[in-house]
Amino acid sequence: MSQKIKPRIYKGTRDFLPEQMIKRQFVINHIERIFKKYGFEALETPTMELWETLSGKYGEEADRLTYRFTDRGDREVGLRYDLTVPLSRVVASYPHIPKPFKRYQIQPVWRADKPQKGRFREFYQCDIDVIGSASMLAEAEILAAIYEILKVLGFDQFLMRINSRKILRGIAEVSGISPEQEGTMARAIDKFDKIGLEGVKSELIKSGINAAKTKALLEKLGSSGTNSQRITDAEKYLKESDTGIQGLEELKKLFHFLQIYEIPEEYLIFDLFLARGLDYYTGPIFETFVREPQIGSITGGGRYDNLIGMFSGTDYPATGCSIGLERIITVMEELDMFPEYLKTPIQALVTVFEASTLDYSIDIARKLRAAHINTELYTGESKLRGQFGLANDKSIPLVIIAGPDEIENQQFNLKNMRTGEQSTHLLEDLIMRVQEILNTLHSE
Amino acid sequence: MSQKIKPRIYKGTRDFLPEQMIKRQFVINHIERIFKKYGFEALETPTMELWETLSGKYGEEADRLTYRFTDRGDREVGLRYDLTVPLSRVVASYPHIPKPFKRYQIQPVWRADKPQKGRFREFYQCDIDVIGSASMLAEAEILAAIYEILKVLGFDQFLMRINSRKILRGIAEVSGISPEQEGTMARAIDKFDKIGLEGVKSELIKSGINAAKTKALLEKLGSSGTNSQRITDAEKYLKESDTGIQGLEELKKLFHFLQIYEIPEEYLIFDLFLARGLDYYTGPIFETFVREPQIGSITGGGRYDNLIGMFSGTDYPATGCSIGLERIITVMEELDMFPEYLKTPIQALVTVFEASTLDYSIDIARKLRAAHINTELYTGESKLRGQFGLANDKSIPLVIIAGPDEIENQQFNLKNMRTGEQSTHLLEDLIMRVQEILNTLHSE
Repeated sequence: MSQKIKPRIYKGTRDFLPEQMIKRQFVINHIERIFKKYGFEALETPTMELWETLSGKYGEEADRLTYRFTDRGDREVGLRYDLTVPLSRVVASYPHIPKPFKRYQIQPVWRADKPQKGRFREFYQCDIDVIGSASMLAEAEILAAIYEILKVLGFDQFLMRINSRKILRGIAEVSGISPEQEGTMARAIDKFDKIGLEGVKSELIKSGINAAKTKALLEKLGSSGTNSQRITDAEKYLKESDTGIQGLEELKKLFHFLQIYEIPEEYLIFDLFLARGLDYYTGPIFETFVREPQIGSITGGGRYDNLIGMFSGTDYPATGCSIGLERIITVMEELDMFPEYLKTPIQALVTVFEASTLDYSIDIARKLRAAHINTELYTGESKLRGQFGLANDKSIPLVIIAGPDEIENQQFNLKNMRTGEQSTHLLEDLIMRVQEILNTLHSE
Repeated sequence: MSQKIKPRIYKGTRDFLPEQMIKRQFVINHIERIFKKYGFEALETPTMELWETLSGKYGEEADRLTYRFTDRGDREVGLRYDLTVPLSRVVASYPHIPKPFKRYQIQPVWRADKPQKGRFREFYQCDIDVIGSASMLAEAEILAAIYEILKVLGFDQFLMRINSRKILRGIAEVSGISPEQEGTMARAIDKFDKIGLEGVKSELIKSGINAAKTKALLEKLGSSGTNSQRITDAEKYLKESDTGIQGLEELKKLFHFLQIYEIPEEYLIFDLFLARGLDYYTGPIFETFVREPQIGSITGGGRYDNLIGMFSGTDYPATGCSIGLERIITVMEELDMFPEYLKTPIQALVTVFEASTLDYSIDIARKLRAAHINTELYTGESKLRGQFGLANDKSIPLVIIAGPDEIENQQFNLKNMRTGEQSTHLLEDLIMRVQEILNTLHSE
């Protein structure tokens, strides 16, 4: 046609070709299955939200990073920045939604950011939240679902770090740190993983918390021993703080529940150095830290009892967690954690020997599909050699050939592309022979 | 928190709440499963494309209806308008993709249009395409997949209308209509369903095709009889047109293939009144017309051998089809075509009798989930009565109750919410008893 255009993608966005899509779908399908098993239901919200809905919810930085434009009717709109603000709008918009509302949501979000390695302008988020429950059971359900997801995906050496904003407030109180300094304190503590104890110390002092108070604070944060020892220690120095004690009582309940869920103790840690960045948390906060492979945090969340009230007359207690879907997929790819067979959904390629044998090939494809076997029938123009090349390029595990001899004898020829074995069988045994080989592949 | 905002959604977009999502997922899952069975693999492309990629591909109207803005780095970008142009960009960008490339893509697209009943600014499209095959087998694969999808979803009285741009060109030739008038001719014919034969006639005459030519044309289009009779009729009057004869030869092959695929003849019609609106079609074109329920066309597509060349040095033969996903979902909802059980993914609600029985309830939920039963554990604060209300509101089919008496005897109480039956069983029979009831539900 007329002028040719050099094909270019918008920087910071990605095409997901079939070999990536099958891996993404594998992870997302497992996550969705487990979410449903834990009673979470799906929600989707629009890509565009009115600017009034998005603005001022996340802070100045986020307002700046939101894709934002004026539509043809002069309405200011923005592209979805995360999944929590849309959820809050939904809860406020549909008061009839039965509570507790347990929803999951897996959709892309957009950031008008400079693209860098591993940082994209479009990426998927994956959230679960419980709206309308003040019980620690809500946190337990979320953590149990996440535990099962990580296990199923093949992560093993991970720690679910748990703390509470109430406990941090209590520690601030008993260390003589004023409520105004609590935000600064939390942000300094939150950097512990990156800058270490000395780093946190100097950040705290720089921010105007004096050396004595800093010392008092850090002594308390550096607790050790089992989770119940850590709780007992904290009970001692928090007894002057009602908020602190309340936070501790909540975590005691949560740890008790997690035991009934049979989540092994070694996966759980009451970690006072966990603070989380966002301002809106009000109770328990949690993160999952993967030790082996060393990839850091891949989930994070907490209780936010006051956020939904921004959109409606009514406050709802709420707690939720975001799963770092993109990070999980990247790590699983880099570390080759996907099953060997997960290269294509196609299980068999039916070749076309020559024009005159085509009907027989169509019939074989039809029979395989009727038996729920994902089958590609060759539609191109290459000879048999090129057709085998296609099976190789696409990692299709089985190739079926039927030339005039096979047709004459109502047979087919079957090649196992993994082993190279090739054999001829009766057409009436088609499904059985193909299934035999497919079964060996999935048990690899 | 500070100021309250009245929650508003951006007009023309939708929230999909759980009761809609389960139906959408049901349809999409069936479609994806069948696409894979026919050897189509998944592709996803970015929401934003550079404006240079989108502009001028669809015509003026579409350029006007594309959401378009300038990013912070002064790049002009637009939101995905359909799935065909992104596919063409992908094929041109990654020359290593093995051909034939059979891809499916299910993603939202955006139109900066005035919202109306049934017309949205954001909606899903669902496409399959075969790139790199000039064979009619590619068309046959697409039509066979669509046939199976519609059957599985419960559509029965439908017709797959098939025609060819080559045949229409042939008819124009032998009716003395000039190549310049062919576009006008196709657009007029395409309105047959809406404006009838007389309407088409006056449109043709209005557009400058004289009465004699119009008469000659309409005589040919109004063919009748079986498909092979229609083909034989057309062969007679097309013998002077090479293009027309080539188009007929292709359709003869296609009808022959569809017979081997065992698609019953009564679902297929060679319909000369099918023309399709888009300019870029070059060969066979097809639509599915649903007669009962009367909803008109729900799929449409055709061969477009020259489109991909716009993005790359190389032309690829290509053919594809769009499935009207949103329309299918709307119709299935309106006509109550979804299975009765498809109201929630949650199969059982485990109630909490009182605080002291909570651990026992957690244990029951844990056991059900280990047996892959989707289970909600009640996390709210209502008494048992309110918990039953929640099960009702969410259409959860089974409720499990365990009070102090049941715990004492290691039992549980089970209520079938469909029949109202309630019975007490031993805890060790939990999975068996629950499965018994779930099995009756799915065989309804």
